[in-house]
Amino acid sequence: MLQRNDVVVFGITGVAVVAAAVLHFTGANEVVSFVVAAAALSLLAVNVSSGTEHVGEYLSPGATGILQSALGNLPELLVCAFSLRAGLVQVVQGALIGSILGNSLLVLGIAIFVGGVKHGRQTFDAEAPRMIVSLMMVAVTAFSFPTLAHYLHTPAEAHEIPLSAACAILLLIVFFASLPFSLSADPQRSLRHAKQPDAAGGQHWPLGMAVTVLTLASAGAAVVSEWFVEALEPAIKALNISQAFAGIVVVAIAGNAVENVAGIRLAAKNRPDYAMSVILNSSLLIALVVAPALVLLSFVLGGPILTLVVPPLLIAALLLTTLTSAIIVIDGETIWIEGVALVGLYAIIAAAFWWG
Amino acid sequence: MLQRNDVVVFGITGVAVVAAAVLHFTGANEVVSFVVAAAALSLLAVNVSSGTEHVGEYLSPGATGILQSALGNLPELLVCAFSLRAGLVQVVQGALIGSILGNSLLVLGIAIFVGGVKHGRQTFDAEAPRMIVSLMMVAVTAFSFPTLAHYLHTPAEAHEIPLSAACAILLLIVFFASLPFSLSADPQRSLRHAKQPDAAGGQHWPLGMAVTVLTLASAGAAVVSEWFVEALEPAIKALNISQAFAGIVVVAIAGNAVENVAGIRLAAKNRPDYAMSVILNSSLLIALVVAPALVLLSFVLGGPILTLVVPPLLIAALLLTTLTSAIIVIDGETIWIEGVALVGLYAIIAAAFWWG
Amino acid sequence: MLQRNDVVVFGITGVAVVAAAVLHFTGANEVVSFVVAAAALSLLAVNVSSGTEHVGEYLSPGATGILQSALGNLPELLVCAFSLRAGLVQVVQGALIGSILGNSLLVLGIAIFVGGVKHGRQTFDAEAPRMIVSLMMVAVTAFSFPTLAHYLHTPAEAHEIPLSAACAILLLIVFFASLPFSLSADPQRSLRHAKQPDAAGGQHWPLGMAVTVLTLASAGAAVVSEWFVEALEPAIKALNISQAFAGIVVVAIAGNAVENVAGIRLAAKNRPDYAMSVILNSSLLIALVVAPALVLLSFVLGGPILTLVVPPLLIAALLLTTLTSAIIVIDGETIWIEGVALVGLYAIIAAAFWWG
Repeated sequence: MLQRNDVVVFGITGVAVVAAAVLHFTGANEVVSFVVAAAALSLLAVNVSSGTEHVGEYLSPGATGILQSALGNLPELLVCAFSLRAGLVQVVQGALIGSILGNSLLVLGIAIFVGGVKHGRQTFDAEAPRMIVSLMMVAVTAFSFPTLAHYLHTPAEAHEIPLSAACAILLLIVFFASLPFSLSADPQRSLRHAKQPDAAGGQHWPLGMAVTVLTLASAGAAVVSEWFVEALEPAIKALNISQAFAGIVVVAIAGNAVENVAGIRLAAKNRPDYAMSVILNSSLLIALVVAPALVLLSFVLGGPILTLVVPPLLIAALLLTTLTSAIIVIDGETIWIEGVALVGLYAIIAAAFWWG
Repeated sequence: MLQRNDVVVFGITGVAVVAAAVLHFTGANEVVSFVVAAAALSLLAVNVSSGTEHVGEYLSPGATGILQSALGNLPELLVCAFSLRAGLVQVVQGALIGSILGNSLLVLGIAIFVGGVKHGRQTFDAEAPRMIVSLMMVAVTAFSFPTLAHYLHTPAEAHEIPLSAACAILLLIVFFASLPFSLSADPQRSLRHAKQPDAAGGQHWPLGMAVTVLTLASAGAAVVSEWFVEALEPAIKALNISQAFAGIVVVAIAGNAVENVAGIRLAAKNRPDYAMSVILNSSLLIALVVAPALVLLSFVLGGPILTLVVPPLLIAALLLTTLTSAIIVIDGETIWIEGVALVGLYAIIAAAFWWG
Repeated sequence: MLQRNDVVVFGITGVAVVAAAVLHFTGANEVVSFVVAAAALSLLAVNVSSGTEHVGEYLSPGATGILQSALGNLPELLVCAFSLRAGLVQVVQGALIGSILGNSLLVLGIAIFVGGVKHGRQTFDAEAPRMIVSLMMVAVTAFSFPTLAHYLHTPAEAHEIPLSAACAILLLIVFFASLPFSLSADPQRSLRHAKQPDAAGGQHWPLGMAVTVLTLASAGAAVVSEWFVEALEPAIKALNISQAFAGIVVVAIAGNAVENVAGIRLAAKNRPDYAMSVILNSSLLIALVVAPALVLLSFVLGGPILTLVVPPLLIAALLLTTLTSAIIVIDGETIWIEGVALVGLYAIIAAAFWWG
């Protein structure tokens, strides 16, 4: 049944979308337009996410997992696709890697800190985190080799586009090969389902309503994403921040705000297994699905081709992030001070991108 | 006693060596010559390996270990020495690091995948893998510091040859220091013996025959190695692949084919302890023995000096490979998806070397 | 009560300080002056350390921890501050990172080797080492990002000084945030107290005497540090070693000799928990406190500003060191051959800095 909570979320989302529309079409102050569009996009992401969960209750666990993988990162995918068409390649690369950094450092760090302060040493089954970290290393390699080939001037430098496309295809193959593991019915081995215990407190939506919410929210996300990207460039100029900082910090945090809050809440409720899975899996989907899909999409979008040749400082950040989160989660145990370490790491990386 | 199996292997090896000789001396098609020489070399490697095992049954475990270390990598050492004399420094560097990548990514990945699909989550004592990974990090440092000194133009750049020689000597010292551990009679701590349970199904060869097989196969390997190297360059040109790709993929896979198959078969038989040891130890011996020995040998071979200044992309590949395999094996547990990750990593690295 | 042992230590320290003074003011042979000043400084460090421990017996565990953190690295801080005022930026950077390398490779390696040879496989609670390694990764990032920004010519290159200051402040914040963990009364979670079981064999000093020893030794360390630094440059020239090698090997070993011996003795006594904590914590304090404090101090010292833009080879050494020690300690188990690996790694790094 529909809950009061749901009605409130729908209402706020509607108001935010209308406000974003008004600001967009009246050409209001660029910073205000940008902030409101970001808020509307985040709220639409909440609705896409809960719509997916409720539709999932009428599907097999495997099909739900596939649906969640496909739609959970839809807003981020849309924002990046529109940014790409607008030629903002650096913002897209920054936003993709920034989302991974934000998840694996800032959000994971806060979750470990909050969980640890409230519940002491937290233990969890490390199989899923370890598998995610292993696959993240593949993604780090796929991002770093085209970049290294470019900056080290190896022969592959002259073939950046096919090399990036090959890496993207290999990442998608690894992702599809990992689906049977991720979608396994065995709850202990299941990642996608990590979110379910948190969903809607056991209240089911009728199928028609769930599908309607999902469709409307997805359509809304498509429209608002475009406004968000249009407001992005003037807002960057008005705020006088660098394009890299905007991608890595602002877009990354706005694009993942909801998923992030869910992960932190799970850790606070002493469910570190679910918290680790939600947070790390979110990074993994960006690396194995969203980024490679955008590389391949860029061939048909009409804007510049998105290659995996990214600023090398982003690669260093990605490598250090993956290794540090590996060291912290691989043993199935976290303490609050490890959360402090992750947040500190994030702050240092963000500082290095502050100057434009 | 001599088994039918053994007779078949001897026969096939003999035919392959004769075929390689005919093709070599008649100056036949270079690609065919190369493929047949590679096959003959692999078959000789099987005979060197089983000869060593059977001779080892008449020796103490410690002496057997030393014999296996010395002869197990003989074909690879010979191929590299002949390539070096022919001036193919890049092929040698590629083949050495490519062998490590091939073992630690492709072979380990297939072994983990096959073992995991057949037997589910596989667990093993992580002490030996952890020790191997620690020593591999020393080797990564020994390979990366001369390279970094060169590309960062530090003062050591002007002393590449003594620095490489010093690193090679230090690696050999670490190897000899690790021998008491590796050769320990305690079966749980023994690496070299990992292969024995697989040997010859309990059938002993008479000592005379074992020594004869070992001697003939080693001598044959020395001769065929030279034909293999002579066929290598024209084959590279005929196939239009890059010298780097030839070293990293073709020579590396051909030179280690037999050892590789053994490791994968052990994993399929649900003996992950032995599989991990055989595969990782093979990488370690190349890093701690074969490569440093070639550096020192190059001073007397009359060809160019082999330094440890290698293409930096190979160092990046080696570092990412060592870290990823560390993350996967360090906890004494593997799941099939981790095998997929390793194979994916290998494919991405190979793709980056595809263009010549 | 005062023990015969104590009297002997005071006597030897007094003699060394007087000898250093005589050599300093008579302008004797520079190498002899340098060696004697180094010895006097090491002996004063022993007295600062035991003074702190004895004063600590009159304080709460938390206050003792803070006192030890503050004074334990005083001699190193003083040497670096004087070197900085003398304009020897490279020596300071080398000495700071060299101290970390020396602790985490050479000393940890010898401790693991000695402990393993005497007592076999050593096991310990890995929580503290894991936490230290996580925080070390933050420090590696803080050291590498200003350096990468400089060498990759990112926009932050033009803001090296504020970026270094920001990183230093963030490291100090992480350190202060970690204090409640480190100072926790729970002995299992306490790091600073790791040294106590080794202290003075249960013999207490009267408070007055403890304070006097601490004050005199600290004052002496301040004076002798200056002589040490003054003798450093002529000694480097006389010995014909590079400034980098002097910082990384000579100053680093001299500055940490005493703490190092304590860690190795604990491992030999089969107390790996304490040994790991003392040794790794010593590296951590240099990274999180001494180095950032010197960066901030350099703004008021009147010499050149100390930035975190260091030679990139030092960053590579720091990263490989942190990762290797992480691989070795993270599982709470060490074997002697892992000690050999760490010492081998140290030797290779030192070799790469040999040429000036």
